[in-house]
Amino acid sequence: MSKLTDLPKRILIGRALRSDKLGETLLPKRIALPVFASDPLSSVAYAPGEVLLVLSVAGVSAYHLSPWITVAIVVLMFTVVASYRQNVHAYPSGGGDYEVATTNLGPKAGLTVASALLVDYVMTVAVSISSGIENLGSAVPFVIEHKVLCALVVIGLLTLMNLRGVRESGTIFAIPTYAFVGGVCVMIIWGAVRALAFSGHMKAPTADLTVHAEVHGIGGFAMLFLLLRAFSSGCAALTGVEAISNGVPAFRKPKSKNAATTLALMGGLAVVMFIGIITLALYTHVRMAENPATDLLRDGHPVGSGFTQDPVITQVAAAVFGNGSIPFVFLSAVTALVLFLAANTAYNGFPVLGSILAQDRYLPRQLHTRGDRLAFSNGIVLLALFAGLLVYLYGADSNRLLQLYIVGVFVSFTLSQTGMVRHWNRHLATETDPATRRRMIRSRAINTFGAFLTGLVLVIVLLTKFTHGAWVAVLGMALFFLLMTGIRRHYDSISDELAAPVPGQADDDLAVPSRVHAIVLVSKVHKPTLRALSYARLFRSDTLEALSINVDPAETKSLQDDWERHGIDVPLKVLDSPYREITRPIIEYVRAQRRASPRDVISVYIPEYVVGRWYEHLLHNQSALRLKGRLLFTPGVMVTSVPWQLDSSERARKRLKRRHEWSAPGSVRRGQIGPPRKEPRAKEPVAGE
Amino acid sequence: MSKLTDLPKRILIGRALRSDKLGETLLPKRIALPVFASDPLSSVAYAPGEVLLVLSVAGVSAYHLSPWITVAIVVLMFTVVASYRQNVHAYPSGGGDYEVATTNLGPKAGLTVASALLVDYVMTVAVSISSGIENLGSAVPFVIEHKVLCALVVIGLLTLMNLRGVRESGTIFAIPTYAFVGGVCVMIIWGAVRALAFSGHMKAPTADLTVHAEVHGIGGFAMLFLLLRAFSSGCAALTGVEAISNGVPAFRKPKSKNAATTLALMGGLAVVMFIGIITLALYTHVRMAENPATDLLRDGHPVGSGFTQDPVITQVAAAVFGNGSIPFVFLSAVTALVLFLAANTAYNGFPVLGSILAQDRYLPRQLHTRGDRLAFSNGIVLLALFAGLLVYLYGADSNRLLQLYIVGVFVSFTLSQTGMVRHWNRHLATETDPATRRRMIRSRAINTFGAFLTGLVLVIVLLTKFTHGAWVAVLGMALFFLLMTGIRRHYDSISDELAAPVPGQADDDLAVPSRVHAIVLVSKVHKPTLRALSYARLFRSDTLEALSINVDPAETKSLQDDWERHGIDVPLKVLDSPYREITRPIIEYVRAQRRASPRDVISVYIPEYVVGRWYEHLLHNQSALRLKGRLLFTPGVMVTSVPWQLDSSERARKRLKRRHEWSAPGSVRRGQIGPPRKEPRAKEPVAGE
Repeated sequence: MSKLTDLPKRILIGRALRSDKLGETLLPKRIALPVFASDPLSSVAYAPGEVLLVLSVAGVSAYHLSPWITVAIVVLMFTVVASYRQNVHAYPSGGGDYEVATTNLGPKAGLTVASALLVDYVMTVAVSISSGIENLGSAVPFVIEHKVLCALVVIGLLTLMNLRGVRESGTIFAIPTYAFVGGVCVMIIWGAVRALAFSGHMKAPTADLTVHAEVHGIGGFAMLFLLLRAFSSGCAALTGVEAISNGVPAFRKPKSKNAATTLALMGGLAVVMFIGIITLALYTHVRMAENPATDLLRDGHPVGSGFTQDPVITQVAAAVFGNGSIPFVFLSAVTALVLFLAANTAYNGFPVLGSILAQDRYLPRQLHTRGDRLAFSNGIVLLALFAGLLVYLYGADSNRLLQLYIVGVFVSFTLSQTGMVRHWNRHLATETDPATRRRMIRSRAINTFGAFLTGLVLVIVLLTKFTHGAWVAVLGMALFFLLMTGIRRHYDSISDELAAPVPGQADDDLAVPSRVHAIVLVSKVHKPTLRALSYARLFRSDTLEALSINVDPAETKSLQDDWERHGIDVPLKVLDSPYREITRPIIEYVRAQRRASPRDVISVYIPEYVVGRWYEHLLHNQSALRLKGRLLFTPGVMVTSVPWQLDSSERARKRLKRRHEWSAPGSVRRGQIGPPRKEPRAKEPVAGE
Repeated sequence: MSKLTDLPKRILIGRALRSDKLGETLLPKRIALPVFASDPLSSVAYAPGEVLLVLSVAGVSAYHLSPWITVAIVVLMFTVVASYRQNVHAYPSGGGDYEVATTNLGPKAGLTVASALLVDYVMTVAVSISSGIENLGSAVPFVIEHKVLCALVVIGLLTLMNLRGVRESGTIFAIPTYAFVGGVCVMIIWGAVRALAFSGHMKAPTADLTVHAEVHGIGGFAMLFLLLRAFSSGCAALTGVEAISNGVPAFRKPKSKNAATTLALMGGLAVVMFIGIITLALYTHVRMAENPATDLLRDGHPVGSGFTQDPVITQVAAAVFGNGSIPFVFLSAVTALVLFLAANTAYNGFPVLGSILAQDRYLPRQLHTRGDRLAFSNGIVLLALFAGLLVYLYGADSNRLLQLYIVGVFVSFTLSQTGMVRHWNRHLATETDPATRRRMIRSRAINTFGAFLTGLVLVIVLLTKFTHGAWVAVLGMALFFLLMTGIRRHYDSISDELAAPVPGQADDDLAVPSRVHAIVLVSKVHKPTLRALSYARLFRSDTLEALSINVDPAETKSLQDDWERHGIDVPLKVLDSPYREITRPIIEYVRAQRRASPRDVISVYIPEYVVGRWYEHLLHNQSALRLKGRLLFTPGVMVTSVPWQLDSSERARKRLKRRHEWSAPGSVRRGQIGPPRKEPRAKEPVAGE
């Protein structure tokens, strides 16, 4: 690519990174914040609205309870941030919740966390993209009119981008995230100024509507339940907080300290934005309802299904900046962009978690190698399919999708924090230095409180949301759990079956064969055959013969003539096949040989063409492949492919090489692939894959 | 299977045949007739109706011209039958039109015939099934109300049946075909008796309708064109006549004579049924129209889209036996059954033609082996997809589908007969025996007339039907032709590339390597590794080492410990892979070795697991497979799979064996796979596949 065309790309997405160059490009805090915080920060785009929305069930009067809910969420946010700061220090390898739970609570807990996280990644994509579409739709009506279609298109684009392996840099995250944070902060400040100084009449677009309360005179237990449900929904603001704890290795030194600082910064920003947005929403009289068509009333009449309920953040922006103004459109756009970036983080996280799970033999071993394109592709496509299905089924309605979210997040929060408590207990048992002990006891206290509070929230979320849709998430987790347990059980049983015998002990399966019979399969005297013969001859096996199948006597005759003409000194055996089969006569011949001398081994050489174009595969090697498939089932046989590279194979070789140099998306978030985890593992993984 | 449960099956489908038992079960004429004639005989179910339908454009008054068209069709039928009797004698190997055209007119003509036949098979399925559904629908209204669905279901069932490889016998053809022929003959006789003796008032269900002529006062050229078009449509009766010429080897001796007699019998039956049905249709005042909804009038008003135009054969049956009577229902059912059997013959013919084309390298070589399940499966699924698409697009309307039919049939008729003329000319040039010469000259005369007449009909069909839909068939033929030419060109260029050098002449590609470096890939010390090591040791290569990739230091450490503990005397080399890749380090290592000693060859041993269940493939061997794929692109490398059969592989081995013993559908039609064709071939096929 010429320098000229490269330039705009570099400006757009910053310096390209290759995974093997990654060691040199660790993230400073100012870049790490946007890279890891797009997910948690973007959730303030929908979390405040959810609180109002649930409260509206008891009418607008219930909105006055929202500050209390906000306080509870802020307390929770600080607790979770404080807890994860402990994780970051204790697990600088970027292990994440799965590792913390597995190491401290055992594999079952770890697998539960993994299942929860897998569901969570799917939900992150579905919720973030739906919410992004809704925010964009506040400024661009077309988008909201074709909501599901637009959401699916964005999922498709993200999937393509990630499959192609876009080389990303910190900058691509930094610009939209800082624009979003800056925009929201300007909005909050400008709103405050207008409210205080000018006592201007800031009114949200829905300020004139009234809310039809579904229940009147609610009180006692029912009111408490509603409050708890509003709180559960607001907890959506917490999603993604754990991301930094997975990314410690990507930070500059001192890694843990920098990560902890970034975590605190992120928590602070999230809290400020959350409080600011919900305060302005109350001040500008934003009205939200779970079923806007029937429960929002204009002059006493329901607004009807033609009404679009805009997200709280754009309603506030409309009130502060004016509907359709440039800052309003700007904020809608960057909000949508940050939400799409948040979805993109799941595209990075899903395959990485898959690779860790594969290493522990909970998923197919081929997902194991990080940075392997195929492993990533499978994960990415799977994630996109799940998320696309959810978006389609739930009509890209972020409110309905949010009912499924959060469960998984709090399952992993709770188990991770509980695991941390165990972690400190274990270390305290041996630690003697008083200063360290003090620090550990303090950390344990924080994690204990974190575990307690997140556990409590988990119970609340399950109680208040189970019938509203959380059961789908629980079901998804259970399915992932069962699948992974089954795969692990399979690998374990294979591992037992294959275990090497105790050294020195005899094993019938491993009896050393006494002689080797070599058979070269030939169909014609051409270069691949000649090469296979000359390679086979190199091995000085005990016997060597060429084998051909007589499918067409004319072809066979010409083979025999060529054989003589070329003076090939290997005996040529021709098997008859009156029914024009190829595989069966060869298999029967090999089996007969084995029966005659069971202690020998048979080595079959197959000349194979190596071709370059996909359709050439359909035209060549199919019989050889099938024959090989059947030969491998015959004990005491080994099969050697002697390749002949056709001219066209060169293009395929280059394509394969290019694929291999592909850099996995999300590599910037993972940092240097550091020394592997040092925690003891339950069992050595099966290494043969 | 117990004898008891086997009994009803044996009664139903006769003695089961295995393809390798086939030699003993040649067909007597009484069985051969139904086996080969279900296709041509079944066409009398739709051909007579087509004649009336086209004539109705000029109003009912034009029906009086139908006897002349019938005469033309009968003449044509006798000509074609007489011509193919010559083919049967000249090509007793069952070569068929493709072989006759290729041998006598060259490969281009042969390929044209092949393309025509492939299109024809698709059309046979689409037309026969649509027509069968219409016939069944005369008795069972549900079927006609869900016409497309029912047609697709029948296609699906036939496909499944053929994929499973139902073992068929002559009886399965004999019963419905004789029932159909018998039923039609009884109908004709009973109709004649009623007409003559009782002068009964036999009236078809549509006798009271009038036909709205689309053109009035038609005359001159337009009328001639209409007559020719009606004739073209009636020629549908000719489809399938050539089938016997492909099946000569399946006949009892004297094969050619018996086949010729059967051909004559079939022609006679078809003519009798055609004349009988069209005569009765005229006598009972059957009314047909191309657009029945608007052009059929009851009391001066169009019958409307609710009206179903029943096929002429069931209308006649309704008139003769009474609508809804037992003989009427019986005739509808056996007509449908024979039409489905006719469709089934295409399921047999399509893959067989594919195998012949593959042998001549016009289609992928893996279709070559007859009786191979995979080859058949691909062909069957492709045929079903094409036919299903046509049925869906044309609403299972046999009349509209028939516009696409017949073109292909007459292309192959014409080219085959022209080829036969050449055949006799060639033989006459050398033949001296006067009696033989006389016979040859007579045969040549018959074939010349056949070629002339079928060529004329082909021109008429193209002229009158091209814009009515025949262009689709022509397009299909062109596509098949281009595809097959392209494949052949590819194989030819590969064949040139691979041609062995002249004996004794040196060739750089074939330089004999001086030494062999053996590398055994290991990941763990378990049984498959130990076996691979002991097999590799058998080969006394110049160097032998074990190679492992350090993806996880803990795993690598454990491997090295085990290596020592087992006292393995092969040096173990460990390659570092900081980015947890497996393929790249190995490829780079192998390439470096090759660079160091370019005249040596590297032999890579890969321990492979052989598993039994499909999902186990996802869990194992994936890295090995991909690695192997890349290694084969590296010159000077050969790859040996050392299989380890897991316990579960036993079930897969049995499954593969069972699949191999599967008998291909339609084998009863092909007879003993005789000695291959003796005619000279243009070029030796590439034998390596």
